[in-house]
Amino acid sequence: MKKRIGIIGASGYTGFELIKLLNSRREIELVVLNSETCVGKKVKELYPESNDELTFTNYSFEEIADFSCHLVFLCMDEGYTKMAIEKLNCKIIDLSRDLRFSDGIVYGLPEIYKSKIRSARKVANPGCYATASILGAFPVVKNKLAKQIIFDCKSGYSGAGRKPSYLNNPDNYTDNIIPYEISQHSHRAEIQKYLEFERISFTPHVVPLFRGILCTIHIILNEKIKANDGQSIYKEFYKNQPFIKILDRIPELHNVSNTNLCCIGGFEIDDANRLVVISTLDNLIKGASGQAVQNMNLMLGLKETEGLL
Amino acid sequence: MKKRIGIIGASGYTGFELIKLLNSRREIELVVLNSETCVGKKVKELYPESNDELTFTNYSFEEIADFSCHLVFLCMDEGYTKMAIEKLNCKIIDLSRDLRFSDGIVYGLPEIYKSKIRSARKVANPGCYATASILGAFPVVKNKLAKQIIFDCKSGYSGAGRKPSYLNNPDNYTDNIIPYEISQHSHRAEIQKYLEFERISFTPHVVPLFRGILCTIHIILNEKIKANDGQSIYKEFYKNQPFIKILDRIPELHNVSNTNLCCIGGFEIDDANRLVVISTLDNLIKGASGQAVQNMNLMLGLKETEGLL
Amino acid sequence: MKKRIGIIGASGYTGFELIKLLNSRREIELVVLNSETCVGKKVKELYPESNDELTFTNYSFEEIADFSCHLVFLCMDEGYTKMAIEKLNCKIIDLSRDLRFSDGIVYGLPEIYKSKIRSARKVANPGCYATASILGAFPVVKNKLAKQIIFDCKSGYSGAGRKPSYLNNPDNYTDNIIPYEISQHSHRAEIQKYLEFERISFTPHVVPLFRGILCTIHIILNEKIKANDGQSIYKEFYKNQPFIKILDRIPELHNVSNTNLCCIGGFEIDDANRLVVISTLDNLIKGASGQAVQNMNLMLGLKETEGLL
Amino acid sequence: MKKRIGIIGASGYTGFELIKLLNSRREIELVVLNSETCVGKKVKELYPESNDELTFTNYSFEEIADFSCHLVFLCMDEGYTKMAIEKLNCKIIDLSRDLRFSDGIVYGLPEIYKSKIRSARKVANPGCYATASILGAFPVVKNKLAKQIIFDCKSGYSGAGRKPSYLNNPDNYTDNIIPYEISQHSHRAEIQKYLEFERISFTPHVVPLFRGILCTIHIILNEKIKANDGQSIYKEFYKNQPFIKILDRIPELHNVSNTNLCCIGGFEIDDANRLVVISTLDNLIKGASGQAVQNMNLMLGLKETEGLL
Repeated sequence: MKKRIGIIGASGYTGFELIKLLNSRREIELVVLNSETCVGKKVKELYPESNDELTFTNYSFEEIADFSCHLVFLCMDEGYTKMAIEKLNCKIIDLSRDLRFSDGIVYGLPEIYKSKIRSARKVANPGCYATASILGAFPVVKNKLAKQIIFDCKSGYSGAGRKPSYLNNPDNYTDNIIPYEISQHSHRAEIQKYLEFERISFTPHVVPLFRGILCTIHIILNEKIKANDGQSIYKEFYKNQPFIKILDRIPELHNVSNTNLCCIGGFEIDDANRLVVISTLDNLIKGASGQAVQNMNLMLGLKETEGLL
Repeated sequence: MKKRIGIIGASGYTGFELIKLLNSRREIELVVLNSETCVGKKVKELYPESNDELTFTNYSFEEIADFSCHLVFLCMDEGYTKMAIEKLNCKIIDLSRDLRFSDGIVYGLPEIYKSKIRSARKVANPGCYATASILGAFPVVKNKLAKQIIFDCKSGYSGAGRKPSYLNNPDNYTDNIIPYEISQHSHRAEIQKYLEFERISFTPHVVPLFRGILCTIHIILNEKIKANDGQSIYKEFYKNQPFIKILDRIPELHNVSNTNLCCIGGFEIDDANRLVVISTLDNLIKGASGQAVQNMNLMLGLKETEGLL
Repeated sequence: MKKRIGIIGASGYTGFELIKLLNSRREIELVVLNSETCVGKKVKELYPESNDELTFTNYSFEEIADFSCHLVFLCMDEGYTKMAIEKLNCKIIDLSRDLRFSDGIVYGLPEIYKSKIRSARKVANPGCYATASILGAFPVVKNKLAKQIIFDCKSGYSGAGRKPSYLNNPDNYTDNIIPYEISQHSHRAEIQKYLEFERISFTPHVVPLFRGILCTIHIILNEKIKANDGQSIYKEFYKNQPFIKILDRIPELHNVSNTNLCCIGGFEIDDANRLVVISTLDNLIKGASGQAVQNMNLMLGLKETEGLL
Repeated sequence: MKKRIGIIGASGYTGFELIKLLNSRREIELVVLNSETCVGKKVKELYPESNDELTFTNYSFEEIADFSCHLVFLCMDEGYTKMAIEKLNCKIIDLSRDLRFSDGIVYGLPEIYKSKIRSARKVANPGCYATASILGAFPVVKNKLAKQIIFDCKSGYSGAGRKPSYLNNPDNYTDNIIPYEISQHSHRAEIQKYLEFERISFTPHVVPLFRGILCTIHIILNEKIKANDGQSIYKEFYKNQPFIKILDRIPELHNVSNTNLCCIGGFEIDDANRLVVISTLDNLIKGASGQAVQNMNLMLGLKETEGLL
């Protein structure tokens, strides 16, 4: 039997990527694609390669409950998750921030919390910046080498979603870079919580490209190590993770575009005893929908990499 | 009498910006525009708004000496400056790195070394990253507030010049960000020397735009201050500098595009006691040719802002 | 007394440009800014320079009628205009296609229908492609010189609006050009009707930029003329039009960006007796909201160019 | 024995693409990579994936003759081909315009002149616009259906090469489209000659992307046909050509990026009896270096598609 899947908020960027990732998988059936903005439209109008029958609908949570989904992805604005959870009696992966600080919720970062995700019914999918940041710093924190960490992130503007806003208006990216929430972005607390490390700074910037995050991680070390040792720690820590690549060179962003990979490299140390690590991912895939599918695979007993390679 | 000016390396990006800045000034005459690559071409072919008579030539240094220039801009690759200086008996502004570490040379950062520049015969024009970095950190260093500084710079690819290279090939910027020389870029030493501060880290990235630098300066403070105090220090320090704007908001890059301004803002402090300052400029103007013209104005006794507002 | 203005569909690209154009005008008061998607949001969140009090609302047509607007701009999807007109008892400018083929409606192309617009209560604002095409061909048609005309248009993707679609997804413009509706685009009939000329072909393309239309008009002449004569005809025809510039060179698109100008040039004839004319405008300004404001000025007895120069 | 190949002008865009295409082929040895601008540089500095030993040199033609090349690609500026041919006693493919109008030279468009190319010693590689235009119109001309043809071409700016010029300066493509030589571009005569059809118009535009050409071909038919018949003629004509794809939909440019394909589609007819055909290719590959390699394969008795799929 096929797995019955629903997506609520299916015409936003993350919902749309979910459709692209799931649409051609044989063991998956997309039974609900809810979108207020696009109700009545064929998915084909937005995504010509999609299955011909897919259509955006606008069901109530009660109606969605009747579809007996195995799992529903929530790609809505913040504030609606609680209501959805109450009405939907199925597994849920929430891509908003709503659950990331809730008790009893599993944080959907498979490289750190894989076994918990396998048995979870509700998963809070991590933020894109948080994914790049945590994956890029975790090994060094676990090895107690970090004194202070500064995350300087560069993102494509799709990270700001599709609802009209200053940050996602392409008109604002002619010859422009936009730094914003330079000390108090909400992902800062998310990183602190799941990296389990307090002394961090976080500054995001949007640059003139559509997709991708490159996070430059400046780690002030509390002891002298060799650059090679830095890299070895990462290789060891992630050796069984199919979506993490530890590089022998400095990563560039285009290599992760449209993939579920997180590529990490750099590992140089200067005489101010700062280790610099570069962590890259596609904000819409490994930073959102690809990671959500990775979580779905785990939660439904499918192969972790299914449909993602 | 008009000031007779020469440009050697006039068809590279910086030489070309010098032509644009000087071409319509009445008190200036461009008497030598040397370019190996474009010899024989009319300047109009590259820059339709230019004066009709301007043509690229390829004179020897000896021949250039005969033009009795008041000042010559050197926009050549590294390694040729020494030879040029020996042959040319006039005021010189060198835009390469060749002189930046030489004894007895004046560093052409007018906001810090204005009086020295006024009487200099040879000026080493600062690098673009160094200009953004030093201007963005100087007040805090002079006030002895900095314990450690991390400069995370984002640049357009024109910073890599016009000679074929990996970094300046637009083909490499589709969906891409390129970090490079992430711990040992040559501007690091330049910043250390002229900022007069040792404990710095410097990491540059090239992003998909042609011109502009945005430098995010993460300053680890050695005492608690208020964000407002940070900003006040900058406003006081630069109060008489026509090309420095201290903003009450976070700067965006497009506001400095095609200007000689350096806009500095941000000034937020997080609970890791990091002050974040954003410094922005056009790498080809304030980061190169505009600053060179500012230096020329000072060296020739003209008004500092002439032709630059 | 200030003119009371409403905008319905105020967070789409055209509604948003209207806010930008009207927000700082002293004689104008924006009393209704309706937006389903953004209801409750401050305009400032999308457009930091806007007046602090402006907020998006979602009133019914009946409620809007109570605001006693002098004029309402309709920036909605197709299909809603009729209902709006029935409920709103004020002057109306409709930016959708709904009215462009209706009897008794004035077509809001001021360079051709200025006196009718001055006394109109309902105006159908022309489409962006139609504006560039008609303005670029009208003089030659009026002078009965055209045998057949081919309009080959290149547009920025903002022309496809802000609702999710294939054509307006920036993700689809990496290294891409998208031709679409290459023989039967709806603007073809609009051009035929208001150019009053049947034998035309129309092919639009979307290219990787946000705003602007460049229309290359290939006119097969029915007699031999000189290129200079072509240009003279245009200069004469538009001599009193403040927003039309007839150039002595080939227009480039960036010169009209963020202006209400339509720049027309080219005027070369080859030995296949084809006259080529290049017509350029900003699709969101002269191709939509700027032209709508020009119409509003005329309809409200204000100066035609007010707020548009 | 490996085929010994030389490239003169190896650091321009077309020379560089030749290196990329040939560098990893086992049966090819790159023995000369001449570049005035880059002499002494490692190819790796421009193209990190290249073979470690490759270095740019600046030999005289006489010195190159001593390398006993089987074939030399000329990627120089116009004007130097004649001299090269006199000095080099080997097979030659010239990518400049120099030979395209010379007697006794084979025009290197394999889909039309394959057997001649197989036995040629000197081949004039076609221009990028000419390739897209001729391939997109040839079947209709051979079937005597065309009365008049208008080629409206949109190109990336790499088509203007790497030497400083107005058209290839990325700084000029912010919000811009640049039409140029709108009636008398040199490719017009090239198309007329090799399409064997006089009544054509040709207008090129450069749009804000690096690589690719999309050519919109407006064919005024001299009789009524059905759109389907148009497509059938193309399918039949190109049925044995491995690099031509006749599509059932409208081509988009990104599908041919970094390939040697020419994709042709559209085939709609409007009531002005204009057939519109869209022809797309990568100007640096099928429009230059890929086609040159295709010619080389034929001239050296290798498989036509070797290294190009």
